[in-house]
Amino acid sequence: MTTVLVVHDVVLWRKALRCLLHHAGDSLNVLSCGREELRRAACDERPEVYVLDLDCPGSPSLLEELGAARRSAPDGGHLVVLGRGDRPGALRTAAGAGARGYVDKYGGTDDLPAVVRKVADGGRYIDESLAFGLLQANEIPLSGRELDVLSLAAQGDSVACIARRLNLTSGTVRNYLAAAVRKSGGRNRSHAIRLANEAGWI
Amino acid sequence: MTTVLVVHDVVLWRKALRCLLHHAGDSLNVLSCGREELRRAACDERPEVYVLDLDCPGSPSLLEELGAARRSAPDGGHLVVLGRGDRPGALRTAAGAGARGYVDKYGGTDDLPAVVRKVADGGRYIDESLAFGLLQANEIPLSGRELDVLSLAAQGDSVACIARRLNLTSGTVRNYLAAAVRKSGGRNRSHAIRLANEAGWI
Repeated sequence: MTTVLVVHDVVLWRKALRCLLHHAGDSLNVLSCGREELRRAACDERPEVYVLDLDCPGSPSLLEELGAARRSAPDGGHLVVLGRGDRPGALRTAAGAGARGYVDKYGGTDDLPAVVRKVADGGRYIDESLAFGLLQANEIPLSGRELDVLSLAAQGDSVACIARRLNLTSGTVRNYLAAAVRKSGGRNRSHAIRLANEAGWI
Repeated sequence: MTTVLVVHDVVLWRKALRCLLHHAGDSLNVLSCGREELRRAACDERPEVYVLDLDCPGSPSLLEELGAARRSAPDGGHLVVLGRGDRPGALRTAAGAGARGYVDKYGGTDDLPAVVRKVADGGRYIDESLAFGLLQANEIPLSGRELDVLSLAAQGDSVACIARRLNLTSGTVRNYLAAAVRKSGGRNRSHAIRLANEAGWI
């Protein structure tokens, strides 16, 4: 029996994904939670696999929290992410967080439960359509942290708010933003956000 | 037996929602499709209820296409939308399209199948958390069309692209955008998009 924890901020998608995994056979014990309950659920339930949607609002910081939860839990646990080919930046952040399963939400594998079981058994899985995105990810000039900060800025978060969310000082956030603007070739912060968005980095 | 058509661009959410509705009992015949197959599915399957996610990329134009599909199908069909309280603009567009069911994705009813059955029987349903959003929607100064155009512009679509998607001339799109900038109190297009975003109109 493999314990899976579905992490999603949208309650309906939590329920629906749970349903999809639950009805695939009786070898999966499927739980779900939002961002707030993540730490507690990781500690109490000791999931062997986490399933996370990279399109979740604020997914970089969620990956961060997930990393902390996995490190603090006794047995760790592997990571399966739900992504899309045109967002190489998010795939790269997931790779940096050590994800072992990559499922394309836009028409990848028909068998998400099989991916979860494979990853639980120590295997790896990637949908073909995401493999190319991961290749592209290597060409992104921004570092993972710069992408995190820029994607939160793109959501309208202030420097102070980004600093709080990522546990950084405001000065460090400003430095990351300045580097992101420079490396993306943008004229200013808004322009950098637009360029990064168009390129699918964030 | 009620035929339900789940419309979503994300294949994984289509499958997961189908699972959620299908396993709730045997009174629902659940089908799903993406934007491209919508017209054909509406004609061939004659669904009594459509389920649409308002967070779907380009949902205003999808609601538009859904309206056309419902009008062209012999028996019409009712509409249930999946929304969120902080996006009153999308709720208003859905109300304009004649939606009869409003389910909050962030923790609304636990029983989506019951909502679908109620709406199929000619009833109405709204989650309490969305009712307030719909009230707010009445205070949005922009018209439905201006919101449609502005939300496509916010996704980075060019005037020509918006015109094509909404079946309008480029001049008309420019007029809607100018009206949206004026009524939102924005300095220019980007500023109007930011203000409309912050207010949850788009």
